[in-house]
Amino acid sequence: MFPLNQWYVAGFSWELSDKPLARTLLNNRVVMFRTAAGEVAALEDRCCHKSLPLSCGTVEERGVRCGYHGLLFAPSGACLEVPGQDRIPIKARVKSFTLVEKDQILWIWMPAEDGTAPTHDAPDYWVHSDPRYTFKGDVFHYNAPYQLIHDNLLDLSHLGYVHLKTIGGNAKVHMNAELKVEAAGDQVRVLRYMPNSAPPPTYTGAWPFKGNIDRWQEVEFNVSHLNIWTGGADIGTEDMRDPHRGGFHMRGFHAITPETDTTAHYMWTMATNPHPDKEDVGQLVYEQTALTFYEDKVIIEAQYENMKRFPNAPQIDIHVDVGPNRARRVIEKLLKQNEIAAAAPAPLQPVAQAAPSVSV
Amino acid sequence: MFPLNQWYVAGFSWELSDKPLARTLLNNRVVMFRTAAGEVAALEDRCCHKSLPLSCGTVEERGVRCGYHGLLFAPSGACLEVPGQDRIPIKARVKSFTLVEKDQILWIWMPAEDGTAPTHDAPDYWVHSDPRYTFKGDVFHYNAPYQLIHDNLLDLSHLGYVHLKTIGGNAKVHMNAELKVEAAGDQVRVLRYMPNSAPPPTYTGAWPFKGNIDRWQEVEFNVSHLNIWTGGADIGTEDMRDPHRGGFHMRGFHAITPETDTTAHYMWTMATNPHPDKEDVGQLVYEQTALTFYEDKVIIEAQYENMKRFPNAPQIDIHVDVGPNRARRVIEKLLKQNEIAAAAPAPLQPVAQAAPSVSV
Amino acid sequence: MFPLNQWYVAGFSWELSDKPLARTLLNNRVVMFRTAAGEVAALEDRCCHKSLPLSCGTVEERGVRCGYHGLLFAPSGACLEVPGQDRIPIKARVKSFTLVEKDQILWIWMPAEDGTAPTHDAPDYWVHSDPRYTFKGDVFHYNAPYQLIHDNLLDLSHLGYVHLKTIGGNAKVHMNAELKVEAAGDQVRVLRYMPNSAPPPTYTGAWPFKGNIDRWQEVEFNVSHLNIWTGGADIGTEDMRDPHRGGFHMRGFHAITPETDTTAHYMWTMATNPHPDKEDVGQLVYEQTALTFYEDKVIIEAQYENMKRFPNAPQIDIHVDVGPNRARRVIEKLLKQNEIAAAAPAPLQPVAQAAPSVSV
Repeated sequence: MFPLNQWYVAGFSWELSDKPLARTLLNNRVVMFRTAAGEVAALEDRCCHKSLPLSCGTVEERGVRCGYHGLLFAPSGACLEVPGQDRIPIKARVKSFTLVEKDQILWIWMPAEDGTAPTHDAPDYWVHSDPRYTFKGDVFHYNAPYQLIHDNLLDLSHLGYVHLKTIGGNAKVHMNAELKVEAAGDQVRVLRYMPNSAPPPTYTGAWPFKGNIDRWQEVEFNVSHLNIWTGGADIGTEDMRDPHRGGFHMRGFHAITPETDTTAHYMWTMATNPHPDKEDVGQLVYEQTALTFYEDKVIIEAQYENMKRFPNAPQIDIHVDVGPNRARRVIEKLLKQNEIAAAAPAPLQPVAQAAPSVSV
Repeated sequence: MFPLNQWYVAGFSWELSDKPLARTLLNNRVVMFRTAAGEVAALEDRCCHKSLPLSCGTVEERGVRCGYHGLLFAPSGACLEVPGQDRIPIKARVKSFTLVEKDQILWIWMPAEDGTAPTHDAPDYWVHSDPRYTFKGDVFHYNAPYQLIHDNLLDLSHLGYVHLKTIGGNAKVHMNAELKVEAAGDQVRVLRYMPNSAPPPTYTGAWPFKGNIDRWQEVEFNVSHLNIWTGGADIGTEDMRDPHRGGFHMRGFHAITPETDTTAHYMWTMATNPHPDKEDVGQLVYEQTALTFYEDKVIIEAQYENMKRFPNAPQIDIHVDVGPNRARRVIEKLLKQNEIAAAAPAPLQPVAQAAPSVSV
Repeated sequence: MFPLNQWYVAGFSWELSDKPLARTLLNNRVVMFRTAAGEVAALEDRCCHKSLPLSCGTVEERGVRCGYHGLLFAPSGACLEVPGQDRIPIKARVKSFTLVEKDQILWIWMPAEDGTAPTHDAPDYWVHSDPRYTFKGDVFHYNAPYQLIHDNLLDLSHLGYVHLKTIGGNAKVHMNAELKVEAAGDQVRVLRYMPNSAPPPTYTGAWPFKGNIDRWQEVEFNVSHLNIWTGGADIGTEDMRDPHRGGFHMRGFHAITPETDTTAHYMWTMATNPHPDKEDVGQLVYEQTALTFYEDKVIIEAQYENMKRFPNAPQIDIHVDVGPNRARRVIEKLLKQNEIAAAAPAPLQPVAQAAPSVSV
């Protein structure tokens, strides 16, 4: 069960090359490509003739051509050509999805009802376009349902146990840090500030800190993605609660797009502001982040395997679960809304009325 | 569902060595072997004692011996020996299948009703025994149901998209070639002739063509196998519709034996008439053919994976589907015949009738 | 279905290092560890917070710490610490199992009813502690249900077919050897004596036999493990039926602990009495035994795969099946006992009775 009538991340711009890109998104097998005109497109990944995935075919100027018998499809899903015959059968068309490209992110609209148009614009992510930042990212595949990744990202207390090698720091400091959870609309924010704490390995590798730091972790949950802004500054040099603070920044974009009910795509980028005295900071931060996220993947997949071993086993809540539980309630609410909308009767058609009989 | 009361190909002569050969055919797990007397045999691949596959055992002079406790079974399925005891239990026997060897092909009779004898002889394939030809073959395993391979072989228009590196040629020429479909009994023939067309890579590698060629493709579908005779000759030098034509020949034997409802064996040989000026033509043609068939396997398995992703999704027909659809009707008819035969009451036993009482 | 209220082998002492050990035993996923005080413990392998396997965590002085959010659990299953909060939730506890360590074997009590204490002591295995013997062992995983391994070990006639390279010897001699089956309580004993037989490769490698030997095979079946004492002596030098016999000894400990209904752990050691003139006999015997048991694994897994291919296919019995069938009846009897106990009403609470009214 996934919230529908939402934009989800389908991939990144740099994934669209001269070959079609196949990906399953919310149980829909989709093929993506870019035409010669630069248009991006997403179609159901199945030729309507013999069912070969269109992603086994080739990208051409006007669309994607099937690799079995050569049928050509436009971004709209219309069949443009059936080799060897003039007439194109009326049913020769494949389903299309709305795909837009913004800030190097491919956003796909997932409607509750087939073929309905987006009700709002796809999200912005200006960090990718801001010259102060350098970024790099990747797409990880998870053998675990999407909400377990939400839980993980909304609870940064696990850093002290899972990520000691990179961004962890002292477990007790993490666990005892001041924690604030805010919710507004479909957003949840989890804020943690750790003044005067020891900088973890990734931080000291990327920035010339003098000693202990004032450290912040600001997590913003949205239905399809989280923006996580963490960083630190030498003690007492910056107001760590001020969005205009200086120091070392790591701005993570974390899109979690369900693949199926039990698997997910984790599509992330990490942006940082390179220190002038340090070389290759972007690459270092990327590599450390990839390592960190791989540690999460190992834990979350082991967690899910175990949940399957112990179906219906009760779980207890501890204090760090406030943020994750809040986000779960947002998802629940949206699922409920989708359900109600699906059950509602279709809008009434105007009914022709008999003209009133008038006797003069 | 597979047509029964048919001969299917179980393997090739060269596969029977000093070890037993295990293969699942139409959902029957079978072990094949050859006795010292040269007799070929096929038994159910399960020892009646502790169920070990007999294919884990050893081939001996008189039969196959189980690798667990040493029970020995004859080609008839009778147990010849139980080590350590004199009496052979009455139930110590395994099911046997009729297996015959002709032209280096092992044909197995698959009866609709257990134990019934073949109603006709196994097919001939004289090409394997004709000195004008050299041939070589292999057994491919398909994660796809058998009829998708029929579809592929009966529709040669895919050559221009799938097999550009070997036997493809120009896609448009293939798609627009003259096409003739004939059916007689349980056979379907698809004939295509492409005068004055460019010879594809495998052809030019194997034969010293002078330029464009007159090219033929003759596909003969039988329930358990297809014979495909393709080739070409320098323009205007041969009547490409005459079976006595010269030029370069590729004669393919394509046995498609269902393994299970969703998997199949593709057992093929390719024979060619080597040109005296070319060396190793047989090996070249074999290698190019293996490559070509591997390309088909990739496409057909991807197609089937996708059919499972989109169950019940409708497919449209285009002009090249005439041959495949005709063959599908043959299979349907045979399945229907098997069904009717299975539902029919057993032949009546003659009933002793009371002699009519006659009064004179 | 497994007999409960039994001790099963969970592992060996040398498997408990500084990392937790995870193993599934009779469908229970268990984590084992040893505390700083030397206590061994077995807990359900699931943190009660977010379900991560505790085996993904770390062993500490007082217990095992979860690798996600740092909850610490004692050998009793009680939660000792929830990082970041003072109060430990009342439900923060995991299920524990009784685990005892004897003779380097870890025995786990598997109760029919959760939480009930052992009704008798764990078995002894003094061979591991006897200085006349040297031993080494391993844990094999079987993709086959546990009783197929019982069958194999109780019927040594398969040696002549499966283990020709190691401990086999002549197949006919094995099959025709004198065989005696005894049963008492839940034990079954299978005894075979083969006077004047050729020593197999493992024997001649480990012991300087002069020629043929008098050979014994004594198998003792217990519900959770078998003790198998085999060996041989130069002809006529020892009474091969006397437990105080000399010569070459192989004493096998074979614990078969069901993992699931269809898989099992085979935890074995092999002890031998090294001959003073031979070096590295212990290692040789271990290696040959590992090879032998691997041969069994191949056969038994192939057997089980085939039983799944032919569900409900009948099997016939031969003379060597007496021992295995006897053991199967023991298991059946115990399963029946567990079933009856489970169906029995709970013991009655003493009921307060009205005092008899006495009229004087």
